[in-house]
Amino acid sequence: MRILITGAAGFLGSHLCDRLLAEGHEVVGMDNFVTGRPENLAHLSGHQRFSFIRHDVSNFIFVPGKLDAVMHFASPASPNPNSPYGYVNLPIQTMKAGALGTHNSLGVARAYNAKFILASTSEIYGDPEVHPQKESYWGRVNPVGERSVYDEAKRFAEALTMAYHRYHGIDTRIVRIFNTYGPRMRLDDGRVVPNFIKQALQEKPLTIYGDGSQTRSFCYVDDLVEGIYRLLLSDEHRPVNIGNPHEINILEFAKTINALLENSTPLAMFPERRGESDPERRRPDISRAKEVLNWEPVVSLEEGLRKTIPYFQESL
Amino acid sequence: MRILITGAAGFLGSHLCDRLLAEGHEVVGMDNFVTGRPENLAHLSGHQRFSFIRHDVSNFIFVPGKLDAVMHFASPASPNPNSPYGYVNLPIQTMKAGALGTHNSLGVARAYNAKFILASTSEIYGDPEVHPQKESYWGRVNPVGERSVYDEAKRFAEALTMAYHRYHGIDTRIVRIFNTYGPRMRLDDGRVVPNFIKQALQEKPLTIYGDGSQTRSFCYVDDLVEGIYRLLLSDEHRPVNIGNPHEINILEFAKTINALLENSTPLAMFPERRGESDPERRRPDISRAKEVLNWEPVVSLEEGLRKTIPYFQESL
Repeated sequence: MRILITGAAGFLGSHLCDRLLAEGHEVVGMDNFVTGRPENLAHLSGHQRFSFIRHDVSNFIFVPGKLDAVMHFASPASPNPNSPYGYVNLPIQTMKAGALGTHNSLGVARAYNAKFILASTSEIYGDPEVHPQKESYWGRVNPVGERSVYDEAKRFAEALTMAYHRYHGIDTRIVRIFNTYGPRMRLDDGRVVPNFIKQALQEKPLTIYGDGSQTRSFCYVDDLVEGIYRLLLSDEHRPVNIGNPHEINILEFAKTINALLENSTPLAMFPERRGESDPERRRPDISRAKEVLNWEPVVSLEEGLRKTIPYFQESL
Repeated sequence: MRILITGAAGFLGSHLCDRLLAEGHEVVGMDNFVTGRPENLAHLSGHQRFSFIRHDVSNFIFVPGKLDAVMHFASPASPNPNSPYGYVNLPIQTMKAGALGTHNSLGVARAYNAKFILASTSEIYGDPEVHPQKESYWGRVNPVGERSVYDEAKRFAEALTMAYHRYHGIDTRIVRIFNTYGPRMRLDDGRVVPNFIKQALQEKPLTIYGDGSQTRSFCYVDDLVEGIYRLLLSDEHRPVNIGNPHEINILEFAKTINALLENSTPLAMFPERRGESDPERRRPDISRAKEVLNWEPVVSLEEGLRKTIPYFQESL
């Protein structure tokens, strides 16, 4: 297949490029480098089946030659308000990538009669009343809250994808991506995995807000990419959760990181932060992915962290 | 003020034009006539303070001269799947009006440093768990359902409006419009008010699905326009519900129509229709409008119907 990946220079986009090239496909990468980074694709320079177009997906997309699939992965995605790459600090770009970018990506898929995959997110579930979240859950999102620039953009993107499927007959897929980690995450992304690894590598105290009993579930990037690749090859038009349902509390997670990195600095406990909603307290119900894609994550947290740490060591 | 109204040839847009002209303002109307109709504005032909631009708001908007306010009212809005003007039959246009149209309307407001009012809807509440709905309620919407083409487009439009307010400092307003009726609704709009009036005028049986105990609340268009005008003059950036909280059940409503039109044909009772969700079972909590705008509806249902009926008589 010849596949366009928007957001190709991002954390997930660049791993997708690698996987699709390894499977023998031809990949056209697209990015405007608002949050993506050229170095994530540097190793593909000169690859015979890889080409790159620097372009902002909120403008009309033109790709010379035919396309068999379009994967729309372009968007700021960090929920951290303290990171310059957090979507709340790139509000208009985030909304344009979600609405105009999805519209243009669907347009190019339609022009070439190509498959389309939308990178959606667990954030469309907002601050959920149910745990874990099934795909049939409609979510609980504040349409005028600070985080709505991302949540509502992705909900709109899902609705537009379904509209193109229903009314233009486009062969679409929607993947709802849960918390994922791995090499090529930004050290300054602001999420807990890079934060803890950075602190531990610098032999600083890992910072915990509250008593550390709050839980997270983390998916290693290779598992995620496997799920997305299976979805691409499937016939599933309904949204599919891809993520790791294994929950770990933050205290336990901090201890795992310190043990792996031999950081003996005591943890720094701070009072709980009160926000509009805690962005990452979500856990996927992956029954649909198991049933339809025969997929489930296989990389353990410790194994995933061992694969991730060298990247951060190099970055520091 | 010089005011741009998108969707000016629609039911609500045309009434807004009339009111703003009556208040001495200058009005620039804009419409592409997908659901709006030239005859709604025919009486303004030659008006010294009215001009019109035929344009699709999903393309870049240019208005010569300055603007003091932009009111974005362009969108298909009928929830009826059996009407050719129902948004489920205009899915892509509806999503473009909500996302691209709002983006372009905010763009022209920003260019002229003009106030901006978004016409939002009670449909952002979806299939609500609470009655009546306050503005603080986040709603319950299926992002991939058939109706999401409207609901998610309007939720996105609200989020984008708030983003322009927060990050570009635009002086924005959001009105959440509940079920409204009056002259210039389409006879074939598919909603219950035109349906019943048409049936009664033709001395046909009024059709009721279920036992008629389901309730609706209807706001007469003059009341709605008064609320929107007060919102325009206010400083309220938060969403404001404008609608009539008075509930009436469908059976009672049918009898009112038949009495007003002296139609003695018995009612036609059919089994309940099962849809994804009943679109109109919503009732506004108007405490915010009362408090901030000192507004509440003043036109009784019977009075409003008496003002509406002659329009439908003429249309038939």
